[in-house]
Amino acid sequence: MRITTVGLDADDTLWHNETIFRMTQERFRTLMSGHAEPEFLDSRLAEVERRNLALYGYGVKGFTLSLIETAMDITGGQPPGHIIADILAAGRDMLAHPVEPLPGVPEALDELHRHYRLVLITKGDLLHQEQKLAASGLGDLFSGVEIVSEKDASTYARVFARHGSGAAEAAMVGNSLRSDVLPALQAGAYAAHVPYHLTWAHELADPPTGHPRFAELASIHDVPEWVKGLR
Amino acid sequence: MRITTVGLDADDTLWHNETIFRMTQERFRTLMSGHAEPEFLDSRLAEVERRNLALYGYGVKGFTLSLIETAMDITGGQPPGHIIADILAAGRDMLAHPVEPLPGVPEALDELHRHYRLVLITKGDLLHQEQKLAASGLGDLFSGVEIVSEKDASTYARVFARHGSGAAEAAMVGNSLRSDVLPALQAGAYAAHVPYHLTWAHELADPPTGHPRFAELASIHDVPEWVKGLR
Repeated sequence: MRITTVGLDADDTLWHNETIFRMTQERFRTLMSGHAEPEFLDSRLAEVERRNLALYGYGVKGFTLSLIETAMDITGGQPPGHIIADILAAGRDMLAHPVEPLPGVPEALDELHRHYRLVLITKGDLLHQEQKLAASGLGDLFSGVEIVSEKDASTYARVFARHGSGAAEAAMVGNSLRSDVLPALQAGAYAAHVPYHLTWAHELADPPTGHPRFAELASIHDVPEWVKGLR
Repeated sequence: MRITTVGLDADDTLWHNETIFRMTQERFRTLMSGHAEPEFLDSRLAEVERRNLALYGYGVKGFTLSLIETAMDITGGQPPGHIIADILAAGRDMLAHPVEPLPGVPEALDELHRHYRLVLITKGDLLHQEQKLAASGLGDLFSGVEIVSEKDASTYARVFARHGSGAAEAAMVGNSLRSDVLPALQAGAYAAHVPYHLTWAHELADPPTGHPRFAELASIHDVPEWVKGLR
């Protein structure tokens, strides 16, 4: 078996994302400190986000709307105006946040793209993800970019058929066991988990045990060597 | 020259969209009637939308955030809570609005898909556009779906290369001269304008005059005959 194609997740695999959400959530806690304890606020926000996921999908715009809705809930429907203004500003700050590749990413991608077709596979707001890729300076290394609404086995089967030679000759790399690893394995691809130090509660999952096509890697540095050894 | 591929815009070409935005804007006028005259409100909203377009892109979530921002502006940063609640509800209503193909669309697409590859090419929120296509019942007629952040000549060149045999053998159909017709012509494709009775100010443009690959059609009914005659 020869690997022709490597799929890479973007957020928290190539650049910071969850950190920026957590910073905004910390800002939200401070903003709401006169109205709710941090733990209570967090749990209400998580509930609102979960409820809205099917309608809003992933990304900053839906998150901003969920923050506003949570502020409404917590204040009995009468939030002080400055809270709404600050949430809108926080959402804009997230969208305009500078993008910098995580350590080791440019080197690993540069090595990989000499031997394999690279495909970026990510969820989130369409325009925002395109803007982040452009800002990262990594765009030219990818021969395909797929911004998808959900990452399941059929997504990986479709993307690796379109951009490569099918899932059986593809390897997927990402920080989310739930979104990057398990469905890619299910589609028949190889998959490596490269953890990020924070994981959104919605993305948590148990690692596969003893799966022949799965690898747990400590860092993106280890990816080229891992892919090279797949045969 | 043989046509192999027909690109179709979605919103206001296959199903209602602008009508739903206008209904929401009417609801917003009523909601804000104690605070602003309708004309003033409309012009402020248009200004906010224009300012946010580069950051939010197209779609309901960005529109909802722009409504909230406009309400903040108009009320000096202190909107009554029920206004925010009602805007959030209006956004959710838009996302959950039932989708019904416009008259003649299923028949025209059914005829077209017997002879050509059909590709849906649309802007907006990724998840929402996928949900609308699924709800429309038209999904099986398309061999490709491209939800894009912007419709320019390079978008059409890329999409018609990916899903067909290039722009020179493709025809694009849509209600927006600015997004569907002019850039498709620029990419080298044929293009037909099928007007909808409402057009968002941002999408207005002058029709091309005397362009050999352009047609103005009264209805989607006329599309199969037009494509058949392109040779």
